[in-house]
Amino acid sequence: MARIKTTQDISRKEVITEAAATLFKEKGYKAASMRDLAEQVGVEAASLYNHIKSKSELLHNICVQVANDFWEHIHEVENKKCTGVEKVEAILRYHIREMITNYEKVYVSDREWKHLTEPYLSNFHTQRREYRKKVASIIEQGIHKGEIKPIDAPTAVLIILHAVSGIDSWHRSKQKISAAELEANMVTILIDGLRK
Amino acid sequence: MARIKTTQDISRKEVITEAAATLFKEKGYKAASMRDLAEQVGVEAASLYNHIKSKSELLHNICVQVANDFWEHIHEVENKKCTGVEKVEAILRYHIREMITNYEKVYVSDREWKHLTEPYLSNFHTQRREYRKKVASIIEQGIHKGEIKPIDAPTAVLIILHAVSGIDSWHRSKQKISAAELEANMVTILIDGLRK
Repeated sequence: MARIKTTQDISRKEVITEAAATLFKEKGYKAASMRDLAEQVGVEAASLYNHIKSKSELLHNICVQVANDFWEHIHEVENKKCTGVEKVEAILRYHIREMITNYEKVYVSDREWKHLTEPYLSNFHTQRREYRKKVASIIEQGIHKGEIKPIDAPTAVLIILHAVSGIDSWHRSKQKISAAELEANMVTILIDGLRK
Repeated sequence: MARIKTTQDISRKEVITEAAATLFKEKGYKAASMRDLAEQVGVEAASLYNHIKSKSELLHNICVQVANDFWEHIHEVENKKCTGVEKVEAILRYHIREMITNYEKVYVSDREWKHLTEPYLSNFHTQRREYRKKVASIIEQGIHKGEIKPIDAPTAVLIILHAVSGIDSWHRSKQKISAAELEANMVTILIDGLRK
């Protein structure tokens, strides 16, 4: 069970990583400088290096954290005793919630991972591909059992994952429905679209 | 009725615009240089300026072309005598086909429009917002008539438009289904998801 995080638990390094995620999201990883980051955190640029080695380490930490959380979640879902449709719904809801509550990190790991350095780049790319294959395979099992329409599973994965990345527009929109309503609407449209 | 384009019709300027779209997609607008473009077209950088004024003019031309095509299409759809669901399907199919056949330009106008200069930036932004409102309003009419589920229309727009932008992954994937199958699968999932 996940322990509840207290303010004291959030280390200086984590504060810097969170600020980096916000900065990389706003400016893009390439354009963001350590000077910008220092300003965001409210310290001298030099003192950042007491906690982290480089800008590239920050991107790596963000991507690994996000990838591992998603990886752990899909592993739990795979082992659940429930229907294929319910598994896809659990995955969709997790993606939506992460995109809402862990927005900056999820956004950065989704859009900026190509700037990772080797061997992390290849590892991340492989894990990302394997993750999508796992989702496709859950959908295929659902099709096989007659719970999900006979559709092309990779296309369904593409639709689900990209629809979720559209939550970016929701964050930016002024007149928006609540997070719970957003989740309910996305599930209604996407899961009903899959269900046979 | 649209006239069929012959090779002779494609002017030098259009050749340059198409090369610019490919380049802006690959490198991003900001990172792409006129030197890169000249190389792509196979001419000296200086001679590009006989046909176009600046890199910014190229981005403007791409964005305006795409925006006008989509604008014209939705205007046709609005005036069609058919159900709301059929209208949404027509819009979805148009987006999918444009994202397949006019990929580079659609991609660039979708992702790089923020680099437009004023007053084009504001115009484009307004037209983009108005376009989404038109789609939402068609969906709302469908809900009102009981053809579409009682969902939040802007969320449905977000899902549809972002799912279509996922066709980018389809272009990059090696083992892919045909364009017709992709379209059929996307329509099945997304339109069934909306239908009451």
